[in-house]
Amino acid sequence: MENGTLLKAKAEKFGLTEGITEWILTTKNAAGEEISANAAPIGIIQKNGKICLRLFKGSKTFENLRREEYFAANVTDDTVLYAESAFYDLDENRFEYREYQPQAMPAERIPVLKEADCVILFRCADRNETNELLIIEIEPIDCMIQNADKPGFVINRGINAVIEACVHMTRYELTKDRAYIDKINQLQEIVFKCGRKRDREAFEIIMKRLQG
Amino acid sequence: MENGTLLKAKAEKFGLTEGITEWILTTKNAAGEEISANAAPIGIIQKNGKICLRLFKGSKTFENLRREEYFAANVTDDTVLYAESAFYDLDENRFEYREYQPQAMPAERIPVLKEADCVILFRCADRNETNELLIIEIEPIDCMIQNADKPGFVINRGINAVIEACVHMTRYELTKDRAYIDKINQLQEIVFKCGRKRDREAFEIIMKRLQG
Repeated sequence: MENGTLLKAKAEKFGLTEGITEWILTTKNAAGEEISANAAPIGIIQKNGKICLRLFKGSKTFENLRREEYFAANVTDDTVLYAESAFYDLDENRFEYREYQPQAMPAERIPVLKEADCVILFRCADRNETNELLIIEIEPIDCMIQNADKPGFVINRGINAVIEACVHMTRYELTKDRAYIDKINQLQEIVFKCGRKRDREAFEIIMKRLQG
Repeated sequence: MENGTLLKAKAEKFGLTEGITEWILTTKNAAGEEISANAAPIGIIQKNGKICLRLFKGSKTFENLRREEYFAANVTDDTVLYAESAFYDLDENRFEYREYQPQAMPAERIPVLKEADCVILFRCADRNETNELLIIEIEPIDCMIQNADKPGFVINRGINAVIEACVHMTRYELTKDRAYIDKINQLQEIVFKCGRKRDREAFEIIMKRLQG
């Protein structure tokens, strides 16, 4: 139990905050002659102390995590990796495998991106499937730094949306151009969906300013 | 010289990347009976090996840095601090002062935010003023970690814009709703203005996908 709490704290340092954070998930493809892996950007949801994935039917990650128990979340500030893995299959030589030894079970080999700065290894703890959605409760089982120079990087669309809203609000105050207000209103949804409690508070400051 | 290069590398770790990064700048207000400070979010521009500020006439930061030689850039992932300092004056008890000793000169006291995770102290090296704009070339003189648990956090609107563009492109591919293409086109300007070389490359991947 203590170990789980420590791992969660370590994962938070690597960028796994409250709200929805954006990661490149690496999963094992179905066993063929050789092991192969898939990478794709996915949001990890952390809410009320639980960590989970919401995967839509049809993606490779959906297929793989319906079957595989282990996967990795990769941390990087390299946006090229996000764009490439979102829209293309990465070559197998971009992956390496981390060994994980569950208690009284054969060792697992979990794919990670060689270029990632850090990786968090996860286990799927519980699955709920509806017609088009697979919700998986997950738990971190290990955190590894691969590049000591860049040990953490949070990608939270809610944090980013607050920064954008501040920029728009500043410009609105200078120009009184109401197009900026539309932009701020559009950002609200992302802050409330992906942001941390603190980001929602920050957004309230902007809204109050707008009203006052 | 070597020291300058080392300081730049350290500042980069704290989030001062190529492109435009967003910081809370803390500056000294004009001398009254007591020292007081101002905080405001400002972009720091790093391009072709030079670091500079572009300040518009009328802001407190403009006034203060026209006169003062030293200031600090504060790192935090707390968006409330951004919103508060963008639109309100922070209480003086939110600041503390770091001493800096220039060669053969009296010691300087530079205001920083108590709540910042890290701070970079800067010196204004060169000023160019036009009718409405003050462009200051700046150089880091010291980097300090205030919260060892959170030693770095990059806020680069270009990085964020690439992530948003990936999200919109993924949704466009699912829905074929052309509203997503408009959003991607709007993000391009931010990527090219604030992003790093790598972020522009990432955006090209998305544009190619859109065209192909």
